Amino acid sequence: MRIGVLGAGQLGRMLALAGYPLAKTFTFYDMSGNPSAGVGEVIIDKEGSNLDEFLARVDVVTYEFEHLPVAIAERIAESKPVHPVPRALQVCQNREAEKTLFGNLGIPTPQWRMADSADALRQAAERLGCPVVAKSNTEGYDGKGQAVLRSPEDAEQAWNAIGHDRLMVEKFVEFTREVSIIAVRGTDGDVAFYPIAENVHHEGILRYSIAPAPSLSRELEEKADGYIRALLNELDYVGVLALELFETADGLVANEMAPRVHNSGHWTMEGAMTSQFENHIRAVAGHPLGNTAARGLSCMVNIIGEHGEINRILELPYAHLHLYAKEERPGRKLGHVNVLADSYEELKWRVRNVAQFLPGSPELDCSLTRSAV
Amino acid sequence: MRIGVLGAGQLGRMLALAGYPLAKTFTFYDMSGNPSAGVGEVIIDKEGSNLDEFLARVDVVTYEFEHLPVAIAERIAESKPVHPVPRALQVCQNREAEKTLFGNLGIPTPQWRMADSADALRQAAERLGCPVVAKSNTEGYDGKGQAVLRSPEDAEQAWNAIGHDRLMVEKFVEFTREVSIIAVRGTDGDVAFYPIAENVHHEGILRYSIAPAPSLSRELEEKADGYIRALLNELDYVGVLALELFETADGLVANEMAPRVHNSGHWTMEGAMTSQFENHIRAVAGHPLGNTAARGLSCMVNIIGEHGEINRILELPYAHLHLYAKEERPGRKLGHVNVLADSYEELKWRVRNVAQFLPGSPELDCSLTRSAV
Repeated sequence: MRIGVLGAGQLGRMLALAGYPLAKTFTFYDMSGNPSAGVGEVIIDKEGSNLDEFLARVDVVTYEFEHLPVAIAERIAESKPVHPVPRALQVCQNREAEKTLFGNLGIPTPQWRMADSADALRQAAERLGCPVVAKSNTEGYDGKGQAVLRSPEDAEQAWNAIGHDRLMVEKFVEFTREVSIIAVRGTDGDVAFYPIAENVHHEGILRYSIAPAPSLSRELEEKADGYIRALLNELDYVGVLALELFETADGLVANEMAPRVHNSGHWTMEGAMTSQFENHIRAVAGHPLGNTAARGLSCMVNIIGEHGEINRILELPYAHLHLYAKEERPGRKLGHVNVLADSYEELKWRVRNVAQFLPGSPELDCSLTRSAV
Repeated sequence: MRIGVLGAGQLGRMLALAGYPLAKTFTFYDMSGNPSAGVGEVIIDKEGSNLDEFLARVDVVTYEFEHLPVAIAERIAESKPVHPVPRALQVCQNREAEKTLFGNLGIPTPQWRMADSADALRQAAERLGCPVVAKSNTEGYDGKGQAVLRSPEDAEQAWNAIGHDRLMVEKFVEFTREVSIIAVRGTDGDVAFYPIAENVHHEGILRYSIAPAPSLSRELEEKADGYIRALLNELDYVGVLALELFETADGLVANEMAPRVHNSGHWTMEGAMTSQFENHIRAVAGHPLGNTAARGLSCMVNIIGEHGEINRILELPYAHLHLYAKEERPGRKLGHVNVLADSYEELKWRVRNVAQFLPGSPELDCSLTRSAV
């Protein structure tokens, strides 16, 4: 089976590396002019005029990022199966649609309002109670197009700074940690859940994912399973879906979802029986889903901006290196290291050993370091 | 780093899939006209006239099979590093050289003699005591160019059947099982050993490898480590080396070696901390070696001739599928399934579950099935 991937970055690369052992071949469709996948055939098409050439080479289409024109996905869907369904793209590109869907499915979210003017933003901030965060309703990701309002007085400045004509305004959530759940749904409707991961961000970029998340109650795990199952079924979704959540004193609160394999699931490459990449390919290709159980305890450490001392990391007997073959650039994801251990205490120390060879890695500040395990 | 691979079959494919995460790229040099690697760039050159084109595209060269002209490896070594060293090829292409090297290093072998005529073959059979096996000294592999002599009277017929002008004659070894050890040596001389695997052949083709080999004494494991270490050091070898051995009442007896990643090491993909493929790439590229420890118990099941019921295998939560994207043909290696378990008893049953979906799979006849574990 010939699989077409919209986008040609590291996620597409890892999808291909997981798909070759299932006898799939890969063609990437790149609209950025700067593909990095480095495996399989790449069609570069910045103007979107060579879509037919791409389609002639593939049997089924999936994507590695959600910020692509929905019209393209819909046009593809007229001639080839597209998984996940284009509606998932639509929802993920529009915060109002996403939060509305969450609400309709009973998935808790922060309180939110929409604002179409600086004045409406001020009113929203007053009603919700500051601090609030204002986000462009569309076209925003990786923390771009956002502003925090400490007081309703900040509305004018925030409105101008963001420079969009429609904002979502969310009440701040007091959370103890950020977690994410990744699940996969097959063409037959079968669903499998990975253990929840605890995520550590630094300057808006994911730095660490620990899985299974330490000390997570069975009750919360089941809640999260229920939330993501509801999304998968509602969207008649095929493939891997990621849902980011905050853990709060009142339970889980959904932040956002990503209709693709996700950085917080990279630990599954050595840390689960079947990786998220293989499971996405299995789903898209119509195969049975693979076992999502964890193999021991894992922490994924992102390599950001600089490669650091790669050979020192390769010396560590518990570390698995995954490079994306990209040039160094500040803030750029260049690879990740999966660290394995049999206990969380061991995991914590091993992660610190890895991080010392990665310049600019923040301290591991997570539930493991904030309390005795 | 750009790695060149002589040969473009499934071993090269799996080397590449293990090497991309280390940011290596791959170019294959195929002299068969029928490459199957399916990843990376392939230069097809049946006449051997485009070697320079290949060399211009690579920084270092390795190989995936040992039956290639030594002259080509030597010619390459004049301009690029070649790992393993071409002398390893030379030794593996000549049974007399191989067994002589084993003997020089104190590695036990079956008793053997050379024969240059039907008459000499008869004499060798008489001296060694039948049964013996006669094998062409060069150009023989996968059980081709061999004949068994039950009595010295069979010499004339065997000589004619093999049709070579120089044969190695080996006394039959009474063995309890076949095992293999795989080790890797880095550019700095560092050596790492995988646990020994027990191998089950059927009609001359490897069908199952169980690792770590059940009930193997620590003493024999250390012997095998010593044998392969001696070979690695004597050859100043860089990369993965496999050594096939018979376990007998008197200890281990060496059969033959392969200067490459080996089918009996495919279990390492999910069954060891670092796969043989990654470790070969690490060695060839001058990186530190990876951890060779087992992750639980594994059995590799080869997919031979027909793919069988792939979707049924994908349903099994303990099975990992690796396909080579090759067309079905009797006796052809099409892929393998790595089965994981926590106990040998569990492993045995799981392997049988997998084998039922692979037509023509022989019964699992090994130390696990011949005795209670």
